[in-house]
Amino acid sequence: MSTSTPPSHSLHPFDQAVALVAMGAPHTFQGQVSQDYWNMVGPYGGITAATLVQAMALHPQCLGDPVSITVNYAAAVGAGRFEIEANPVRTNRSTQHWLLTIRQVGQAGEDGTSQVVTTATAVTAVRRQTWSGTDMAMPRVVPAVEAPRAPPIMGGVQWLERYEMRFVDGTLPPRWDGAEAESLTRLWVRDNPPRSLDFASLAALSDVFFPRVWLRRAHRTPAGTVSITVYFHASREDLAAAGTAPLLAQARGQEFRNGFGDQTAQLWSESGQMLASSHQIVYFKE
Amino acid sequence: MSTSTPPSHSLHPFDQAVALVAMGAPHTFQGQVSQDYWNMVGPYGGITAATLVQAMALHPQCLGDPVSITVNYAAAVGAGRFEIEANPVRTNRSTQHWLLTIRQVGQAGEDGTSQVVTTATAVTAVRRQTWSGTDMAMPRVVPAVEAPRAPPIMGGVQWLERYEMRFVDGTLPPRWDGAEAESLTRLWVRDNPPRSLDFASLAALSDVFFPRVWLRRAHRTPAGTVSITVYFHASREDLAAAGTAPLLAQARGQEFRNGFGDQTAQLWSESGQMLASSHQIVYFKE
Repeated sequence: MSTSTPPSHSLHPFDQAVALVAMGAPHTFQGQVSQDYWNMVGPYGGITAATLVQAMALHPQCLGDPVSITVNYAAAVGAGRFEIEANPVRTNRSTQHWLLTIRQVGQAGEDGTSQVVTTATAVTAVRRQTWSGTDMAMPRVVPAVEAPRAPPIMGGVQWLERYEMRFVDGTLPPRWDGAEAESLTRLWVRDNPPRSLDFASLAALSDVFFPRVWLRRAHRTPAGTVSITVYFHASREDLAAAGTAPLLAQARGQEFRNGFGDQTAQLWSESGQMLASSHQIVYFKE
Repeated sequence: MSTSTPPSHSLHPFDQAVALVAMGAPHTFQGQVSQDYWNMVGPYGGITAATLVQAMALHPQCLGDPVSITVNYAAAVGAGRFEIEANPVRTNRSTQHWLLTIRQVGQAGEDGTSQVVTTATAVTAVRRQTWSGTDMAMPRVVPAVEAPRAPPIMGGVQWLERYEMRFVDGTLPPRWDGAEAESLTRLWVRDNPPRSLDFASLAALSDVFFPRVWLRRAHRTPAGTVSITVYFHASREDLAAAGTAPLLAQARGQEFRNGFGDQTAQLWSESGQMLASSHQIVYFKE
């Protein structure tokens, strides 16, 4: 109705970050790296995973909703444009299997040719109602409203400003004194500003934890996710029910050895339903 | 020296199952589905994962050893030959990222064209010695020698004959009476006959558990792995030290919802070192 869009109607930073345009080539989408989710040397890994989830959702042949995605961070994604190829290589009656890559021009000092910066596979499915149950109940913790909202755990890191975090257990060590401890973190977390949960933002939230090795060792070594897997247990209805409320997010490391450590994580809705479980393997320098 | 190979010198069934021949096309290998590892409607998922690990190891450009692999079972692999494409799409200084597919001719009723039956991604790396530690100690259980060796949990399933299993906790429910219980299984397990551990066999062992939903519900519904991820914490030296001794393998489900349930697993050497952690998402029918 108006010729200019007032700022109050502008897109949420998350929606801007995962916005994609379908290209002429089959299965191909173009996006723009968001500075709002910038990490130290590239975009936040969670937003990259979310962008791949978004590419599948936008694909005209997409069957059902995400069941799993594995994203491998092959190289730091640079600023500027990127291209996603999201190829549904096998479509069954109720499941669909995807190969995905992100490419950028000028990576790795190459001369004008685009280079693979991210690889991924995913499964989408049309899910039917079945018996459902859990074998890992949400831990009993203080409600989100009673947990103090933490300032970003590190200053000057853009993506940390995009999440409202309320730590319950295992925030950054108070001192980097090398005192070994367990690597368990629990926090209430949601988008900042709040935004209704969807599959893409659930994928992004699955990567919200700082490196487990920092907590385990009270030692801040350079570290970064090499590969993350997210299993989606939520339906669209479950996501709608979760709305904009905080999720309880839990992560711990299991094994750290010779430069790589794993992390296993769960995300529950405020009402106690596990919406996603997630795993990653993380490089650490020393 | 002899014109015939005596049976005592024949390859271990595992080595036969993962044997591959490099083809003329780049990154391409051909293999033959092993009947020794046949499951109900296709090969054991673990042997498929192992074959992909083997393809990377055989690739002349392979950098380092496996850090992670994710294998997605897009369709049942049929009997006969298959083709693997194992493409190192990004090689960095010390890490390498792979896209892998398995194709078979005549899948899905197509006329003579090969179809994707499996997709995968993997990361290999040259690992350096760093600080190492665990945050998940091996559970205290009876030693392998004191745990009774179990007959295969189901008769007539070939791949179950390929493993020596000694259950410590959570074998198949004694009665399929629908009594809900926790989904934790612990067993000592190794190849049958014993074989020195390597990355390929460690990948195969990561899928050795029967579906968690059977144990959780004492109800035997059709079920199958959709996607498995293995994180390798072991070096070649660790594998050599593990030798042919049994591994302690532990698995549990976390969430089962609307046709899919997850599983998180760990494998420790007899000496208590976590050699691999693994996760999967499993379809179940009802």
